[in-house]
Amino acid sequence: MLVKRIEDVEAVPVDMEGAKDVTVRVLFGPKDSAPTFAMRVFELDGGGHTPYHEHPFEHEVVILEGDIAVVSKDGETPVKPGNVVLVMPNEVHQFRNMSESNPAKLMCLVPVEYQK
Amino acid sequence: MLVKRIEDVEAVPVDMEGAKDVTVRVLFGPKDSAPTFAMRVFELDGGGHTPYHEHPFEHEVVILEGDIAVVSKDGETPVKPGNVVLVMPNEVHQFRNMSESNPAKLMCLVPVEYQK
Repeated sequence: MLVKRIEDVEAVPVDMEGAKDVTVRVLFGPKDSAPTFAMRVFELDGGGHTPYHEHPFEHEVVILEGDIAVVSKDGETPVKPGNVVLVMPNEVHQFRNMSESNPAKLMCLVPVEYQK
Repeated sequence: MLVKRIEDVEAVPVDMEGAKDVTVRVLFGPKDSAPTFAMRVFELDGGGHTPYHEHPFEHEVVILEGDIAVVSKDGETPVKPGNVVLVMPNEVHQFRNMSESNPAKLMCLVPVEYQK
């Protein structure tokens, strides 16, 4: 059994094309021998966003803090704490902090084989 | 893409031997065609707990509300919001609300094949 404090896990800048002012903490992943899926927390600075992209695996997302727009090919959906989001494989998507000044935070889980 | 409000998902009593005063909301599971893992939220009334048990799959857990004791064969570990817990396959475990009066809440993810 492994217990962590989210704040104790290092926040690393997300170095992906199309990402802006985002960091990630890998809470559980291959280094923890997580068997099936990986748990990460992303923090978006004011105006920050993840890439608008798609990939062959799903996301399960929990909105933890702030006001976020989930962008899909059909437009934007506002989400906030209390919302959860399932992004299916090969669905284009982006998470965008709707505030220019306040941070936003989300948890995002993926199959572990896609987590480095 | 599927967006839900946690509060809109029905909370169903957990009918398992050894569970006491616990409900579950299945946020994403087989009915949502979740490909790999299922996301659930458990609410423990004051004094409530999950079964002390083991099974051949892991849990990844996020503490959302309250003061909870994670019980393992090595004893009890207190956890609260800001903590996450990885329970490995075949590890005995239990989540116990340490308050007799206040509710506690946790998110627990499992491989989707183990979610009915």
